[in-house]
Amino acid sequence: MVILGTMLRTAKTTLRNLTARYESLKDQVAHDAKSPAAAETLSLAAKTALAFLSSSCTKVALTSKVPGKGYWSFTTRGKGPRKLSRPVNESLFDFNCGNQLDRLIEGNLRNLPPDDRSRLLYTVAISYCCASDLLKTGDQKTPATFFECLTGHLFARAFSTNPRTQVEVLQLEEDEADTLPTDFIFDLGSGKPKFHVPVKTSTRERVIQVFAHQRVLDGVHGFGKFKGILICLTETKLDHRTKEVVEICVPKQWSLYQRFIAPMHRFYYFDVPQKYANLTTGDPPMAVLPFAGFFDEISELAGSR
Amino acid sequence: MVILGTMLRTAKTTLRNLTARYESLKDQVAHDAKSPAAAETLSLAAKTALAFLSSSCTKVALTSKVPGKGYWSFTTRGKGPRKLSRPVNESLFDFNCGNQLDRLIEGNLRNLPPDDRSRLLYTVAISYCCASDLLKTGDQKTPATFFECLTGHLFARAFSTNPRTQVEVLQLEEDEADTLPTDFIFDLGSGKPKFHVPVKTSTRERVIQVFAHQRVLDGVHGFGKFKGILICLTETKLDHRTKEVVEICVPKQWSLYQRFIAPMHRFYYFDVPQKYANLTTGDPPMAVLPFAGFFDEISELAGSR
Repeated sequence: MVILGTMLRTAKTTLRNLTARYESLKDQVAHDAKSPAAAETLSLAAKTALAFLSSSCTKVALTSKVPGKGYWSFTTRGKGPRKLSRPVNESLFDFNCGNQLDRLIEGNLRNLPPDDRSRLLYTVAISYCCASDLLKTGDQKTPATFFECLTGHLFARAFSTNPRTQVEVLQLEEDEADTLPTDFIFDLGSGKPKFHVPVKTSTRERVIQVFAHQRVLDGVHGFGKFKGILICLTETKLDHRTKEVVEICVPKQWSLYQRFIAPMHRFYYFDVPQKYANLTTGDPPMAVLPFAGFFDEISELAGSR
Repeated sequence: MVILGTMLRTAKTTLRNLTARYESLKDQVAHDAKSPAAAETLSLAAKTALAFLSSSCTKVALTSKVPGKGYWSFTTRGKGPRKLSRPVNESLFDFNCGNQLDRLIEGNLRNLPPDDRSRLLYTVAISYCCASDLLKTGDQKTPATFFECLTGHLFARAFSTNPRTQVEVLQLEEDEADTLPTDFIFDLGSGKPKFHVPVKTSTRERVIQVFAHQRVLDGVHGFGKFKGILICLTETKLDHRTKEVVEICVPKQWSLYQRFIAPMHRFYYFDVPQKYANLTTGDPPMAVLPFAGFFDEISELAGSR
């Protein structure tokens, strides 16, 4: 009972700390997404989540139906029916990445080898999500917003530009221009590229929205004015009863959307599904890449139109 | 206690009956959507739901924030915390429409005056949904599927044509054509129109999918080959704490989607939101109409290309 009491207290303290970091992070990103303060809060949130996962949780083996990838779930220690976190990719998660978290604050991820970079980024993103899965019930929104803040900060810092979340639309018959609410828009300034950056923890059948928004931007501002860059965490789905993990992928539909709705410039994944990676050599070719690769092509993306 | 026991038995029996009707209906619509057998099951399901709502439930007053419309919720009789059904439009719901349900079976809705037709159709759709809201927990799928079966049957019967749910897509480099999964497709045959008919109990921010699917069809088969017809129940949203009803409408976004993604031919509502009805005289004009009006323009829709 004493142990159980201690664990409940730990969970409560962790939840309070995580919630405080989350609220600070949202404010900081809304105010100045590229700021080192946002990086510091991201790093603190990751440390809090990692400490909770390593001290109060254990791994539960999952049956991976994804060729070439292994997954586990976290669960809290103790008796009784226990919640499972979302699946964690075993080759991308790194309990020991704590000492690399300063890279986030210093903003020099690019000097890490790509594989270490992938692991650090994946671990930061998934740790927060897993801690939230275990400490709360039915909360999809907080992990999604955390992931938006993480990627929004990294993009903003890379481009030294804060994002907007709406675009002006000309209306001939009206006095004022309308605005269209969007995901992140990064406008690097006159003569430089503009980016339309939707961010999703997973896309499933909702991916059509991404292409449709790109289509509206292409229609309103002309083809190629906004480069579309999707950032996505993973496409895994866990069956909590059978403990089987699958990836939900619809590559043929992606290809149709790319051809017939609007072409996207990049698709970055923290945990890349092989079925989507194969589209890179498909017809039409679609650039599906590990998000870690973004940091190697920042200047290329920012320089060309 | 005796009364409570009777009520629980009634609820259980109703749920068993409704589930049986639902399963039959799904099979019948999948096998032959236009069949009188499907109409008979729809009518039986509506009778079962209406009997439950009138004998075992009471109305709970709601605060309508929708100009010109009043709403109530159903709740089961008895003590303790009680569930609320989705909101019911007071001028569209008709407890006494039971004797008109044969119209569904006879397939002669067109001979009813438009207002009676609207009430009959709304009552059939919303009764099932409300009964399901009260008898189950967290089930969004069954009401949505029931609504698809109802509208799928009515369209199929009107056009004497059963729907498909996929479209062929030509792939130059491959031997076989791909298929694209879609909402209902009604193909009236050579030289006659084809319809793309998405069906939703509400659209909210997901409406962009409707335009995006239309865009893919326009791209794959050429503009105007498929006429897009959205069928929607309502856009109401109930705050269960404050008991306030609002309509979630984004008319400016609809207008952008119509201009820049793909034009839809009709938008039929069982409970038409005024903000969308206003788009009928907007720029571009968008035909947002009561679903009852469909039965007056069947031959016009089916005749022209």
